[in-house]
This record gives sequence, C-alpha cells and structure tokens, in this order.
Amino acid sequence: MTLKLTLEYDGSKFSGWQTQTNARTVQGELQRVADELFREPVEIQGAGRTDAGVHALAQVVHLKVRGVKRNAAQVLRELNDRLPSSIALLECVEAPPGFHARHDAISRTYFYQFSTRKTALAKRYVWWIKEPLDVAWMQQAAALIAGRHDFVAFRAKDPSRPDESTLVEVEAAEVAIDEHLIVFRIEASHFLWKMVRRLAGVLKKIGSGEVTIAQFEQLLAGRKVPGIDVAASTAPASGLFLESVKY
Amino acid sequence: MTLKLTLEYDGSKFSGWQTQTNARTVQGELQRVADELFREPVEIQGAGRTDAGVHALAQVVHLKVRGVKRNAAQVLRELNDRLPSSIALLECVEAPPGFHARHDAISRTYFYQFSTRKTALAKRYVWWIKEPLDVAWMQQAAALIAGRHDFVAFRAKDPSRPDESTLVEVEAAEVAIDEHLIVFRIEASHFLWKMVRRLAGVLKKIGSGEVTIAQFEQLLAGRKVPGIDVAASTAPASGLFLESVKY
Repeated sequence: MTLKLTLEYDGSKFSGWQTQTNARTVQGELQRVADELFREPVEIQGAGRTDAGVHALAQVVHLKVRGVKRNAAQVLRELNDRLPSSIALLECVEAPPGFHARHDAISRTYFYQFSTRKTALAKRYVWWIKEPLDVAWMQQAAALIAGRHDFVAFRAKDPSRPDESTLVEVEAAEVAIDEHLIVFRIEASHFLWKMVRRLAGVLKKIGSGEVTIAQFEQLLAGRKVPGIDVAASTAPASGLFLESVKY
Repeated sequence: MTLKLTLEYDGSKFSGWQTQTNARTVQGELQRVADELFREPVEIQGAGRTDAGVHALAQVVHLKVRGVKRNAAQVLRELNDRLPSSIALLECVEAPPGFHARHDAISRTYFYQFSTRKTALAKRYVWWIKEPLDVAWMQQAAALIAGRHDFVAFRAKDPSRPDESTLVEVEAAEVAIDEHLIVFRIEASHFLWKMVRRLAGVLKKIGSGEVTIAQFEQLLAGRKVPGIDVAASTAPASGLFLESVKY
C-alpha cells in the first residue's frame, strides 16, 4: 500500500531530512519507526530535502510497503507514538499506488522568519536582527523575485547534481510583517541548494541598507556584484520553514 | 530611579519566577544581570509569581535602583544582552518612584493551552490531550467560573500564606478554539496557588466526560465531590502562560 504522510518537525533537533549514516535525521527516524511497525521493506521519500536545522510545518512524504493493508488512522497513531516528540505526524491517508511525494509535487512553499526583537519563546524559529530593517525595501526586492531567473548567485553547488540548471521559475515571493516578525515567503516548483537562505540573507542586507535594489537586480540577472559575498550572507537555518507542498 | 519592565520567558528553563537559593529562576537571573549592570543595590519585584515551568508573554516587573539616572532604552539593550536567550526583555520604561509591580496590579490574565494533536514545534507550550474533548462542555463550564467563588477546591495550600482567603473574584473566563489548540483564558485580581492549573485539569476532565457540569458547580461552591481528586488532576505547567497584567 502507498500512504501519503504530512509531517511537522523541529529542525533544530536533526541533521536535516535525508538519511545519513552517522547522524540523526528526520527521514532516518521515520524509516526506523516504520521498519519497526511494518516489519517489511518500507520505502520513504519526502517532497523537500530540508537541511540541518530547517523546520517543516507540512513536509509531505510517501511510504510504500508490501503486505497486508493497514488502517491509515491506526498507522498515524502507531507511528506518532513511536516517533520522537520533535516529529509530529499530522496526517496519514491512502494514496494511489503510483504516488511519489517528490516527483508528483507541483510546487513547494518555504517561509523565512526574521524577528525584530529578542524572543524567548520562539528563538529556535527565527533569526533575531538587532539593527533596524526597512521592510518597504525588503518588500520591493521580494517583488522582483517572482518569475524566471538565473539564481546562480544564490545557490550552493550541490555535488550530487553537478549538471543542475540554475534557472528557476518562482511562482510567488513576498515579504510581510506580523508584529515583531518579518516573514519572507516563496513558492517555486523546485529550489537550488541553500537558495532560500541566501535570498533571505541578501534581503536582510537590503533591509539594513547594505545592499541596494539595483545590486539585487544584478544578482537576479545571474551576475556577480563586487563587494557582495552572497554565500557569506547565508541566513541561519533556524528561521526557515517548509510550509507546504502542492500536488 | 524606578523602571517598569515587561518580560517574556520560556518557563521550561527555570524553577519558576521567584529567587531561590539553589535553583535557576527568572527573578534570580534578572537580579544577577541587574546587579552586574548597575553595581548598586537593585530591588526587583514581579507582578505574578509563576511556578516552575510556567511561561510568561508579559510579566511586569519593577526595578528600583539609587544613583545616577540611566536611559531606559539603553538599560533594555544592556539587560537583554546579559540575560539568557530564554528571557527576553520586551519593554523598559521609567515609572513613578512609588510604582510597585505587584501591589499596583489590578488584574492578571493567564491562559492555558491544550493541543488536540501532537505538535513538534510547540510541545513545550501545550498539554497534548490524546482523547477527544467536547469543547462545548468546556465552554459551558468556563462560563461558570466568572464571578466571586470559594476556590478552596482548586487551590494548593501556600505555606507562606496560611491565613489566605479562598474567595476570589474572577473577572472573566472562557474557552476558545484555534485550529488544534483549545485555549482556556482567565482574568482575576489575584490567584490562589496552582488555581489555574487545577481549573484547567478539571476542564480537561469535563471535555473528556469524566466530570459533569453539575459536579463542577459543586466544586465552584467550595464543596468536595466524591470521586474527584482535583489535586491529582492538576494540569502540567507546560501549557500555562502569564499573558498580561493590568494596572
């Protein structure tokens, strides 16, 4: 049977989504408890490969297992009871046999949270910026991100995908303000490695006045801008969330 | 000078508000960093004595210190830099010399969060209830709490206040639902020890059908109800927040 799972997790407790030999990952934990529950070979794939420290409100995962059919609601309860408290299985429904969480996804939405003040309750979920930020500038810049661009300036080279194109079609991008939080939200069919955190890092520098809108336009055109080290500006993982996956 | 401070803190990191000799408390941390900053005797008092594990969105505190006047905005920055990440100073303003955070408070508002599902991101801030809860029953019960009642059934005896009256005038009480959260909010001039968590614990049992509205009315009338052990039903500290203090 094929199940479609929706997972919430606190990324600060894991070395990212993807299974690794010597590190605690979300996929690794899910694989471990699913193997324990089903006692059959279980295939697990997620829609988004979130990095170490990155959170998810609704990561979508497929779980394929042979053998007897199980009640999806019961699988949800049994997996949740076995999973650590930093992973919550929110939904578990039967999916068509061919369903593939990664290949079938049309788009992913991420958001990045900056906090304009110290926060004791949400410190693991934001990047606290001490200097004043001009949100209007950040909004103006975010509005330029939608559309098809060469994001070569914003990606980290992924050794597992040496020939990956750096052209990405971004469906939507915006910066909104919610009390002390400034939230950058972006939807695209796919993302390059570290792309959202590098965009967030440069947006922060636009807010603080260190990078201009004109310079940002240059970066979005795939050009280098002297004096701007995008990689060194990468925003910390704590503020980043995989919000949703569209099918 | 007298300063009025507003503090947010993650109670899971502290043995409560009040200074203790051999435990890490919020008042203790604040006293330590204030002593370090002012190098003068500093008096610190909070509006609410939150217990171990209880959080605050806006605890109000007075800080009295002799000697030279300081700029309140600068004090805010310097205290925040010294305070641990689990305490955030949100506001620091000059107050009249006679201002007393505890005595001058007209009312305190607390809320208690139940979660109807497992939550990975907010687990330290809720009580996860696995059985189904009837929110309408909880709302009906909460509506009975406002007004003047003998809360003897809901208090823990406070050894430091042996002659305390158990009559409390509750300004407002309600249960609201916000997606997977059920929130019990209560405002009163003062609270008896553990009163909110014992009310929350019994409200949970009303939601699950273990306690009836009629039995709850008996408890609110100051009577014992056979078979109901209110103390044993005390809700865990994780779900409780001091939300605001009115002056």
